[in-house]
Amino acid sequence: MSNVGANTNGGITRLALSQEDKEARDLLVSWMKEIDLEIRIDDVGNIYGRREGTDPEAKPIVLGSHLDSIKNSGKFDGTIGLLSALEVVRVFNENSINSKRAIEIVNFTNEEGIRFYPLMVGSGVLSGDFDIESVYEEKDKDNKRFIDELKAIGYLGEKNNRLKEAEAYIELHIEQGPVLFEEKIPIGVVEGIMGLTWLDVTITGRSDNSGPTPMYVRKDALCTAAKMVLTIQDSAKDIGERSITTVGKFNVSPDSVNTVPGEVRFSVDIRDIDTHRKNKGVQLVIDRLKKIAREDDMQINIDEEWSMDSIVFSEKITEDIAKAASYYGYPQKHVVSGAGHMTTYMNKVCPTAMIFVPSIEGKSHCPEEESDWEDINKGGNVLLDVVRNLAE
Amino acid sequence: MSNVGANTNGGITRLALSQEDKEARDLLVSWMKEIDLEIRIDDVGNIYGRREGTDPEAKPIVLGSHLDSIKNSGKFDGTIGLLSALEVVRVFNENSINSKRAIEIVNFTNEEGIRFYPLMVGSGVLSGDFDIESVYEEKDKDNKRFIDELKAIGYLGEKNNRLKEAEAYIELHIEQGPVLFEEKIPIGVVEGIMGLTWLDVTITGRSDNSGPTPMYVRKDALCTAAKMVLTIQDSAKDIGERSITTVGKFNVSPDSVNTVPGEVRFSVDIRDIDTHRKNKGVQLVIDRLKKIAREDDMQINIDEEWSMDSIVFSEKITEDIAKAASYYGYPQKHVVSGAGHMTTYMNKVCPTAMIFVPSIEGKSHCPEEESDWEDINKGGNVLLDVVRNLAE
Repeated sequence: MSNVGANTNGGITRLALSQEDKEARDLLVSWMKEIDLEIRIDDVGNIYGRREGTDPEAKPIVLGSHLDSIKNSGKFDGTIGLLSALEVVRVFNENSINSKRAIEIVNFTNEEGIRFYPLMVGSGVLSGDFDIESVYEEKDKDNKRFIDELKAIGYLGEKNNRLKEAEAYIELHIEQGPVLFEEKIPIGVVEGIMGLTWLDVTITGRSDNSGPTPMYVRKDALCTAAKMVLTIQDSAKDIGERSITTVGKFNVSPDSVNTVPGEVRFSVDIRDIDTHRKNKGVQLVIDRLKKIAREDDMQINIDEEWSMDSIVFSEKITEDIAKAASYYGYPQKHVVSGAGHMTTYMNKVCPTAMIFVPSIEGKSHCPEEESDWEDINKGGNVLLDVVRNLAE
Repeated sequence: MSNVGANTNGGITRLALSQEDKEARDLLVSWMKEIDLEIRIDDVGNIYGRREGTDPEAKPIVLGSHLDSIKNSGKFDGTIGLLSALEVVRVFNENSINSKRAIEIVNFTNEEGIRFYPLMVGSGVLSGDFDIESVYEEKDKDNKRFIDELKAIGYLGEKNNRLKEAEAYIELHIEQGPVLFEEKIPIGVVEGIMGLTWLDVTITGRSDNSGPTPMYVRKDALCTAAKMVLTIQDSAKDIGERSITTVGKFNVSPDSVNTVPGEVRFSVDIRDIDTHRKNKGVQLVIDRLKKIAREDDMQINIDEEWSMDSIVFSEKITEDIAKAASYYGYPQKHVVSGAGHMTTYMNKVCPTAMIFVPSIEGKSHCPEEESDWEDINKGGNVLLDVVRNLAE
């Protein structure tokens, strides 16, 4: 799969609904057919491969992820969720296991949201968060419509083919962070996805020519913003033990070597697995920023850009994952996902859970993204075990 | 003069050797001719208007400034130096004063250095700091050569016409900072121009996806850079009473809302009127930045981009300026210029001095640049008095 959309630097680029996405989809479908899965495509382009159960009326166990990528991304993100699901079915086939419940493997359309807004559209349509007609009309930067591009790659299917209900949705994914790697733990038992709030903060002081403006009359917006960056970093521990705060975007104007910065605009990203605690944390940060602005006699403007409640996964399946890891004797750690995943929306459709495997040096969304195949194998074994139990 | 290159927002744009610069030069020459000055143009396009003295062999008193501007600049910067010089000659004419020494008014070419590199080229050629052949070959962003543009506006003159020696060069200028305005002092007696050093600093940590990366494993280059910004600000007082330090450029990468910044690159500008103290200050700042980088386990790279020694003006003329202000009963303050001026180079040609008048709210290089005509009048009176004495 990593040959599809391969870049010369070792990374891959498979933007949603591009020619590379089509090639990857075609390859996935061919592999699904090889293991006798029944293919169907829904109206947002999600691909399903179904292995029938002994009770066709029983709700299926769904496994999956996504083939699309951002520009110059890594081979593992998304893809291993699909490859490990195929492997689970192969093991079922090879051992002639006839499960009560059907197993469905799904490739969700446009997880990354780089080419077409919004991200995670394949799962968001299933959960009812996005309206298919609006999704169709979204345009990329070349003014090409989602619906036209979906048709062009041959993956516009029927609304009737959508996943309607499921017993469980389980996704194996790379951690995309350094915790498991640094602690040498192969299995991350994911409790849920952190809720987040993004703030857009603007600090306005006064822009002066640096040379003629003594220190004592300056209103340097960068100095005030610097205090804020440190306060935001420091606030994480005051919000919660595993809370995170990040200033990622940071722009100074006029951004000239001999001008005192008159304005700084920066982003604040606050996350916690507990939505209430996250919201209290947002208020704490806002109060502290306003206090600093007051002390420094600066204007401050704070807009809330985006907010999302945390997602708590199925306690039952999460426990199954932990038990399976224990059964195999794999070291495990309960973690929360800081990044969003399709499980954000799938958790509204059915009981949901995730298994993380380590990312080497925590790298992801870059050509250096790597995971140890031994770890992926362990993740696959845990997935197999959990599916085996749930499918009966 | 402010109608030439006027923008609709009240500002002016007269880039060096542009059509607007030509119009402004033509107007200045017409005014010089009205008061019987003898015009000459040198090989870098400097315009001289000479009022002969009773002793043609005596070194002249030179007054001047520049007509060129940055984009969307103010009416006063440079221009009042020339207008006040014209007024001094008018008063001499009206009162039939025959001074021993000639008075020359000079408009220097390309002070701002916006269109053609380097800045202050008209004075720098006189001092021998720039070679005329290299200046001629400089190109603007449209690939137009300095020499061709100078010819095109009709201001390419003779090398022989350059100012060779002078008894004094004196320039009236707006302060371009807020000190005189805020203290309600009309006359700034300028002791000299601060020396400066510009540093280019790069901090390298590690760029991680923010969500999956807990606070304790992060190597956030922005947090380290924020400490440095505050330390640099704080170091000014440790360098000297009137020292200034500025972080003006500041760029974060990858500059993404949900990514821990892996690299920050920023400028440091350190100035002091005492070159030795300034150099010690640069070392102090470098030591402190390295210490912070070490504590935070960050890579740091510091390049020195530019360094300039301070300029100390003629003590004698500076004292004359102070005496003249006292004679008229004008409040005065000894100041140092944080910004560079043509006097940087002219100080190498002859004894040099500057008179500052207040900039309203310290604004300059913008459409809001204003000075009170009462203050300019006082500055003009001081200039007249000083020239009167020096010319005898």
